[in-house]
Amino acid sequence: MEFEPKKMPDTETEETDIQKEYETAQKYEFETEGIEEKLKDILKDNDKEAAEELCRDVHYVDIANGLDDLDEDELKQFMFLLPEEDVAGILESAWEELQQKICSFYTNDQLIDIFSYMTNADAADLLGILPTYRRKDILRFMKKSDSNILKLILSFDEESAGGIMTTEFIALKETLTVREAINKIKQIAPETEIIEYLLITDKLHRLQGLVDLRKILVANDNTLLKDLLEEFPFYVYADDDQELAANIITKYDLTILPVVNKNMAILGVITSDDIISVIDQEYSEDILAMSGVSKDEEFDSGFFESFKNRIPWLIINMFTAFLASSVVGAFSSTIAAVVALSAAMPIVTGMGGNAGTQTLSIVLTSIARGEMNLKDDWKLIFKEIGLGLLDGAIIGIITGITLTIMYKNIFLGVIMFFSMILNMIVAGVTGFLIPLILDRANIDPAVSSSIILTTFTDTCGFFIFLGLATVFLSKLL
Amino acid sequence: MEFEPKKMPDTETEETDIQKEYETAQKYEFETEGIEEKLKDILKDNDKEAAEELCRDVHYVDIANGLDDLDEDELKQFMFLLPEEDVAGILESAWEELQQKICSFYTNDQLIDIFSYMTNADAADLLGILPTYRRKDILRFMKKSDSNILKLILSFDEESAGGIMTTEFIALKETLTVREAINKIKQIAPETEIIEYLLITDKLHRLQGLVDLRKILVANDNTLLKDLLEEFPFYVYADDDQELAANIITKYDLTILPVVNKNMAILGVITSDDIISVIDQEYSEDILAMSGVSKDEEFDSGFFESFKNRIPWLIINMFTAFLASSVVGAFSSTIAAVVALSAAMPIVTGMGGNAGTQTLSIVLTSIARGEMNLKDDWKLIFKEIGLGLLDGAIIGIITGITLTIMYKNIFLGVIMFFSMILNMIVAGVTGFLIPLILDRANIDPAVSSSIILTTFTDTCGFFIFLGLATVFLSKLL
Repeated sequence: MEFEPKKMPDTETEETDIQKEYETAQKYEFETEGIEEKLKDILKDNDKEAAEELCRDVHYVDIANGLDDLDEDELKQFMFLLPEEDVAGILESAWEELQQKICSFYTNDQLIDIFSYMTNADAADLLGILPTYRRKDILRFMKKSDSNILKLILSFDEESAGGIMTTEFIALKETLTVREAINKIKQIAPETEIIEYLLITDKLHRLQGLVDLRKILVANDNTLLKDLLEEFPFYVYADDDQELAANIITKYDLTILPVVNKNMAILGVITSDDIISVIDQEYSEDILAMSGVSKDEEFDSGFFESFKNRIPWLIINMFTAFLASSVVGAFSSTIAAVVALSAAMPIVTGMGGNAGTQTLSIVLTSIARGEMNLKDDWKLIFKEIGLGLLDGAIIGIITGITLTIMYKNIFLGVIMFFSMILNMIVAGVTGFLIPLILDRANIDPAVSSSIILTTFTDTCGFFIFLGLATVFLSKLL
Repeated sequence: MEFEPKKMPDTETEETDIQKEYETAQKYEFETEGIEEKLKDILKDNDKEAAEELCRDVHYVDIANGLDDLDEDELKQFMFLLPEEDVAGILESAWEELQQKICSFYTNDQLIDIFSYMTNADAADLLGILPTYRRKDILRFMKKSDSNILKLILSFDEESAGGIMTTEFIALKETLTVREAINKIKQIAPETEIIEYLLITDKLHRLQGLVDLRKILVANDNTLLKDLLEEFPFYVYADDDQELAANIITKYDLTILPVVNKNMAILGVITSDDIISVIDQEYSEDILAMSGVSKDEEFDSGFFESFKNRIPWLIINMFTAFLASSVVGAFSSTIAAVVALSAAMPIVTGMGGNAGTQTLSIVLTSIARGEMNLKDDWKLIFKEIGLGLLDGAIIGIITGITLTIMYKNIFLGVIMFFSMILNMIVAGVTGFLIPLILDRANIDPAVSSSIILTTFTDTCGFFIFLGLATVFLSKLL
């Protein structure tokens, strides 16, 4: 549409009329604080109608959030007030723990009915969290065509391309005419998630390319799909990691990405909205992992869940803190002779940690985007060494002069200057190499990089500073 | 499509035949290392044909990456070999610095022609980076209908909903019949970015809801759009922040989100692929900002760009390091008396920093998702105090016993135990409050939280530990 802003009603008088008159597109009420109370009322009166009304007015995502505060009996009572369609909607929007609880209320037959209101990908996710015996039973009692797709999806890792793909897409043979295609589309359309692009295959189901629905709408009835075909060189294999799919879609700004098996037969499609949750998940995992928190912890997780989640990381950190402390302990006679060292040494380690974390965060985000790896980019280490030298010299001069003035001893300042440079180089090199080496070894670099980094910058920082001070002790006294 | 996996060719013999025979959907060559050489060859021979072929074979994103290594004359020579359509494609995929260089090669008239191959959103982005006088000239010489839309987009902040929205959508009046709608769609379709959902308006352009194209395809010719209308309660105002749009789309798993003005007239649409880059950008900005790196730095940024980017943060950190150091300095007589304290004190501050960062990262990711704010969630501070108490007691007991054994002094152990608890509580409270308070004050919490946190945990940690040691100094000797 050629949108023409000048036609819009924008004078003041018009506006008031419009706002009064305007009724339909009511904005969604994002403040869903009242939902707990509404749930209580519904439960008190066992009010089926009010429950269904709630599902019409409030998004399933918010209902699922509200259900978190109910106990198991209340939850069961509420779910049993709802028709299967709403149960399906809430299940799709709930997180795993709530999904498991809700599924336990229903028989296998009921679950099969509920699954029929979901996409295959969502149904497969739910099957994946059920106990094995239930999963097997349900698959056995389903229609063969449904259970085959679900088994296929379940055969892939949850975090693989096959695990996140949509199976509701339109695939047409290249030999169809536009008229035949439109008829097929009309039949299939209500069940499909993706309609904008049609996947085109040869007679053996193998991906040949895409046809844009826009082209079909304007094309001549007898044109063959083959002649409208756009080559589309992007696809992933079903067992590729979801991060690879996310990186391809993000980098090349794609709307859809076909998922194929090794014979190039189309198994499914990943859309940009599937990728949003992947990116959201991977990034917050990275931020949390860098700080030693598992992805399972939410800001409102229970006390003991948070405790269990955080204490292991603190204990690991404690050992590295002892390591750094023992370096200081080894130089206790030097410190006893020049107490000023004890005040100056945290500056060396602290600044090393900060500089190293800067490098680390850039390398980590670049690895997460698939832009960087050890093999191609190891030469950039010389840039980090140079930065360590320059940043260290600048910070070293300022801190060195300050210490010289404070403690009236130029040698303390000189030792600070050289320690700062050396520790900043250590920081740059480790901040650069650690994540790349971990990534190369297929270890998630976000989890362990920062602790290894600070272990290096602390122990090396103390060692360099106190070591230099010990060597030049006579000058410091 | 009902996809039936059993029909796929999957026996070994079939597979070899297929792979030989298979020709069309060639996988995109992601290893684009050879591109620099190809560019050199093209430039040497001034080979127009080879340049166009490169644009057909290699994605513009990768060509733009390859152009980074050319000097200005080479770049100009290469760009002038290309037809306007390819120039447009490369401009859309390039980052700002390269875009500015390329735009400088062309006259205003040429740029207007190049813009005609782009979406309005991309053209507006490019106009936004041009010098003001060029922007004004170009807008003046454009077709009125084009320049009006571009002016509209340019009037919104780059990081607002209006700044990222697409203006190529289909909006139809609710009084149209399905037949009329299909005719309009056929006319507009080739120019639109979104075809899956049609936005439905009343006669004053105000959003009434959506109609799914799937429904139109199967509906009766004379049905009114009004009768196919789905209410759609999600929309944002053009000057809302892009993060709000990203949070709504992510939370409610939407494919599109209409952007309206205050009169509810539709200005544009945000799609899930627009949001991917927002999320990608916001999250990596958060990770980088937490570590004191600006979003403009890439892993392969030039040496001095990286230097300029990182040194301010290091200097700020240096001042906080001096602050912590001066706390230690104030207790120098205590340390002189008991040198063991200098080895033990980094354990207290280090563990406080670690525990605080755990809390901080959870609060930061929850704020970024719009799940948490000071008003609704301040009560969770009691959980953090409890966690500080429990974690501090556990870590405090282990470190306390170790110090008691190492230095054969139980009072040192007891002081460590209480200092650890107190500093972990400080860490939990500051890690929780700082980002929420900054967010409330509309300051980006990712940028400044971590430095304020470690300033607290370092200075408080040293003060608590050395302060207790000073009070009980007689017991330690």
